Amino acid sequence: MKTVTLAHGNGGAENQELISKVFYKAFKNEILTKSEDAAVIEDGNLAFTTDSFTVSPLFFNGADIGKLSICGTCNDLAMMGAKPKYLTCSVIIEEGFEIKSLEKIVKSMKNELEINGAIIVSGDTKVVPKGSVDKIFINTTGIGQILQKGISSNLISSEDIIIVSRDIGCHGATIFAAREGMDMNSDLKSDCASLYPQIKALIEAGIKITALRDATRGGVSAVLNEWANQSDICIEVQEDKIPISDEVKGICELLGFEPMSLANEGTFVMAIKKEEALKALEVLQKFENSNNACIIGEVTQQYPKKVVLNSAWGTKRFLELPTGELLPRIC
Amino acid sequence: MKTVTLAHGNGGAENQELISKVFYKAFKNEILTKSEDAAVIEDGNLAFTTDSFTVSPLFFNGADIGKLSICGTCNDLAMMGAKPKYLTCSVIIEEGFEIKSLEKIVKSMKNELEINGAIIVSGDTKVVPKGSVDKIFINTTGIGQILQKGISSNLISSEDIIIVSRDIGCHGATIFAAREGMDMNSDLKSDCASLYPQIKALIEAGIKITALRDATRGGVSAVLNEWANQSDICIEVQEDKIPISDEVKGICELLGFEPMSLANEGTFVMAIKKEEALKALEVLQKFENSNNACIIGEVTQQYPKKVVLNSAWGTKRFLELPTGELLPRIC
Repeated sequence: MKTVTLAHGNGGAENQELISKVFYKAFKNEILTKSEDAAVIEDGNLAFTTDSFTVSPLFFNGADIGKLSICGTCNDLAMMGAKPKYLTCSVIIEEGFEIKSLEKIVKSMKNELEINGAIIVSGDTKVVPKGSVDKIFINTTGIGQILQKGISSNLISSEDIIIVSRDIGCHGATIFAAREGMDMNSDLKSDCASLYPQIKALIEAGIKITALRDATRGGVSAVLNEWANQSDICIEVQEDKIPISDEVKGICELLGFEPMSLANEGTFVMAIKKEEALKALEVLQKFENSNNACIIGEVTQQYPKKVVLNSAWGTKRFLELPTGELLPRIC
Repeated sequence: MKTVTLAHGNGGAENQELISKVFYKAFKNEILTKSEDAAVIEDGNLAFTTDSFTVSPLFFNGADIGKLSICGTCNDLAMMGAKPKYLTCSVIIEEGFEIKSLEKIVKSMKNELEINGAIIVSGDTKVVPKGSVDKIFINTTGIGQILQKGISSNLISSEDIIIVSRDIGCHGATIFAAREGMDMNSDLKSDCASLYPQIKALIEAGIKITALRDATRGGVSAVLNEWANQSDICIEVQEDKIPISDEVKGICELLGFEPMSLANEGTFVMAIKKEEALKALEVLQKFENSNNACIIGEVTQQYPKKVVLNSAWGTKRFLELPTGELLPRIC
């Protein structure tokens, strides 16, 4: 590592290398190195997380940078079993940016805040000269009230099975299509959505969740690999069980993408005790956004710290942590 | 307002217009519209604030973007009488940025975190293609434990006097000189510093603070005007009492700057009951960073919502909220 490359922001292997060798090394502390979606603070009562959004284009099928900036942070809180409560919002705007576009973005944020029952309590606005930033970047940082304690990527065991909340890869495929000017003539749109309503329903149904993570940069593949590594387990996935829409399949086949590595913004992976699985699916399938939630795999001790893809024909391959540039400015 | 201009980020009048017409309008809630340096949440126990740092150049006399990014957010917490506790850190890096420079920045952050006794508990790293960001932007968002409740810019009265913690304008003048390649052949350096140690000492000395604010973008002038407006008071400042170094005076005279509008990053303004003033000055003057702390003015009802500058010759003029472009990318 001499310079930062696009691959260092991919949510995969190089990203982890940069984070651990530069940031974790300097800032090392017990909370940070747990590497959860959000930090757990104040005696386990609050979750705290940050995300900066640089997506290009700013407006795309299914959402915009405003909606994304609230979903992204609120979802990270929800993934720790927390109710999103207080957010900060910091924007960096290029001079010349249209106020109308800014108002449209802010309106999307407001709508999505309401879905989460959260409020923006503090903000910052920077305006920088042309060429110093591409249009607008938004940071949101959130505090959530933890409703169910103990959700952690470090505690998954062979008693758990793996659920995915919906068909995968829609956000990545949508941004790619928009950026390449591909007219998909189809229903392809980003899955960008707030996940707190589903998590709240699971908790209210009395379901004990082992681990939760929204499959953003690096996709489901990154989540499963990080979990396998953090909990020292093998995750075996049935390839034919993974829900993928025809539109996403089409783009992946056309361009040689691995759908498991495509980014999502409203899709989560859950590890849960086997005996709770059917009840959890029943809860999730009541939501439009997770009506095709399903079990995709199980936890074994076959190949510790590895993710195995089992095909319908009985063959096996390892699913590695994504590497390379993937798609920059996906979120 | 049709497009965002550099003046919208000046910390002054246009900045307030953008914030109130776009952000406050959409996100309106009781905490946000209090417009304090940090939001007060959780029954008055915690302070919560955010800041994005875009300063150019990244390294300058007295500090760098890393030190600035910790001081900026920790100071906003300290200004609410809070001990900085947990921070998040989100960086947006341009591809090609040198790892060595990144490590230098991160080291500055680490040093400054230690001064505040705070830790980074969550982070985010985005890498964007060349031309999408100028080198590196850093967001930090912090939570602090409030040690003295009730500090507020909305409660200043005629019983208070106004103290400034040190000579003003050093950060603004330093960045300007660095950007223009001016060889000052002098001791001019940014005042960038963590203010928590001073605030802690004031609180431990049993001093009751009315209002505190660090005079960043828009300078002392912006702070005093916002206070006059928020507390519906007149602030009368003795012009010859304002401490300004010869170096800063030189730059201001050369370029026609108003020193009261120049940005600071380690200088605060305090409103405090008259009878507490001497004790407060005694505490502050023990710190190298505030050894020339002094009283600069008083609160009256002469011209409500206005700031008046009284010259040594007995003339008066209003000090307005700064307007125009001032200096973009100052922080």
